[in-house]
Amino acid sequence: MITGQIIERMRSGNRFMLTSHRKPDGDSIGSEMAMALILERLGKVAVVRNRDAYPSAYRRLPGIERILTGELPEGEQYDAVFTMECTEIERPGLARIGDYFIINIDHHHNNTMFGALNWVDIGACAVGEMIFDLAREMKLDLTTEIATHLYVSIATDTGFFHFSNTTARTFEICAELARLGANPNFVADCLYDHNRPGQIQLLGKTLSRLEIDWEMRTATIALFQSDFDGIDAVDGDTEGIINYPRSIDGVDVAVFFKEAGTRSFRVGLRARKDLNVAEVAAEFGGGGHPQASGCTIEGEYEEVRGKLFAALRRKLQARSSAAWTADGR
Amino acid sequence: MITGQIIERMRSGNRFMLTSHRKPDGDSIGSEMAMALILERLGKVAVVRNRDAYPSAYRRLPGIERILTGELPEGEQYDAVFTMECTEIERPGLARIGDYFIINIDHHHNNTMFGALNWVDIGACAVGEMIFDLAREMKLDLTTEIATHLYVSIATDTGFFHFSNTTARTFEICAELARLGANPNFVADCLYDHNRPGQIQLLGKTLSRLEIDWEMRTATIALFQSDFDGIDAVDGDTEGIINYPRSIDGVDVAVFFKEAGTRSFRVGLRARKDLNVAEVAAEFGGGGHPQASGCTIEGEYEEVRGKLFAALRRKLQARSSAAWTADGR
Repeated sequence: MITGQIIERMRSGNRFMLTSHRKPDGDSIGSEMAMALILERLGKVAVVRNRDAYPSAYRRLPGIERILTGELPEGEQYDAVFTMECTEIERPGLARIGDYFIINIDHHHNNTMFGALNWVDIGACAVGEMIFDLAREMKLDLTTEIATHLYVSIATDTGFFHFSNTTARTFEICAELARLGANPNFVADCLYDHNRPGQIQLLGKTLSRLEIDWEMRTATIALFQSDFDGIDAVDGDTEGIINYPRSIDGVDVAVFFKEAGTRSFRVGLRARKDLNVAEVAAEFGGGGHPQASGCTIEGEYEEVRGKLFAALRRKLQARSSAAWTADGR
Repeated sequence: MITGQIIERMRSGNRFMLTSHRKPDGDSIGSEMAMALILERLGKVAVVRNRDAYPSAYRRLPGIERILTGELPEGEQYDAVFTMECTEIERPGLARIGDYFIINIDHHHNNTMFGALNWVDIGACAVGEMIFDLAREMKLDLTTEIATHLYVSIATDTGFFHFSNTTARTFEICAELARLGANPNFVADCLYDHNRPGQIQLLGKTLSRLEIDWEMRTATIALFQSDFDGIDAVDGDTEGIINYPRSIDGVDVAVFFKEAGTRSFRVGLRARKDLNVAEVAAEFGGGGHPQASGCTIEGEYEEVRGKLFAALRRKLQARSSAAWTADGR
């Protein structure tokens, strides 16, 4: 069993580093923090480092201040570096990571198995679930702090139990984590009830520009550089806004145009159903998942919009013809 | 045990009605639907009736079309009427309800015990949890449809596991419901991914007016009748918007001014911490809970705003003095 080999390395080594992908999310933070605390319970040294800072919403979680940010300095010695939720060795964004013995723990089907040890469980709703399993295999008692971080992993990676990776097992584990002292209300309050005014104002400005094209079944929102004037908001505050147009009944594609500089727009695309918006993004040199992709298009707003919608229309027409053929008519 | 008496009545009777409070919510719909299906499994007739229509977001839930809306017609015969999640006999809003043998099932501490049989469990996160317990006591196998409705009850009444009533037991029950076939992703998709464009536009317009007063620690939003011009939205679509200003870090009170007619504003108040906004609302003839209250104030916007903030300032000053005294200085 791969977990047996990982546990052996954890017990035999002394110094470990834990990292996750760039722009770390809840599963990154929760799983690396939980693993660091588990290693410390074994009497080991554990350093947590991510290339990018954690989202400010996480700043109230216990022990979070220990997380280091930025490139891995030269000459640091570790018996292993754990990469959490990274599909490829480039994902952590740390130049020197290839110099180390890597333990790759992930739940994505397209993991490239880049580690010295690779543990990929595509059935796990979060890497946090895998760390929970590992701790159980080690017969380790989990502290309230570890349980809290594992709960953060699972709750965020299931979209607070909204996504299709939410199963009976997800709830079973959360029941156990709550018994161990994880406080669901505290975690939700940490993650969601500490917005800044600028985030809310930005959300308002963006959503008030909503336009629907019922023929193409698209919902479009837009944000311009001037919207940031006089409000305390940063680019990262727009994350998640595209879910609002995506949530509209009857809309198949949500499009978010975000002015990124002079004559340049970052375009976010979200699709429901069988439409592959990664292919649309690829036409402009972008990429992503079939249902969530992005690209950058140069030009004035109307021009950029025209280009994107032309590509989208071609894609929609191709789909209609395909459906026609598939129906056998 | 009161549940024993309820079960006896369920087994001995033949025709039952199920209802809940006005403006039914997820726990109303979920618990009355689950109970109706349980009664049918016992071979009984079960009629579900609420005074008000269920929220349109619930229209995709299985069997929901059976729910009748409006006043209880004269002359209907029932062996018992179940009231779900109603603190008082007036809550269902049905004039003739007092004519029946009422089985009152609720989880609110201030329930007035108005039924012939009263089962109030203030430890339950939702009435859905109580119906789950009842089915278990009856040793009844739950169908996927019943499990789905109980999941709707529990998920919505815990704010999708955000509120402080979310416990290990909440997750244990949800694990069992998922094993029985309840699909968390389907339920979340039903309830949250079917907005209308007007709801999103209204949200945008309201939030883009956000104002913060850091001295008073208030966040204010406003919506005017003219905002509804040209968009497909109704008054009920503003529900929940006040949670956005309430979510801002450092804000103690969120205020939502909603123009209700000529020179008339409906004011929603939400407080964090120890401030009792029900007392502020009471000054204008309104009421509610200490942390969530509302009132109507007549006048032009600036005038209404001035009145409300003057009352709020008095309240905040009274609190400061009280804190001073409580500190023993």
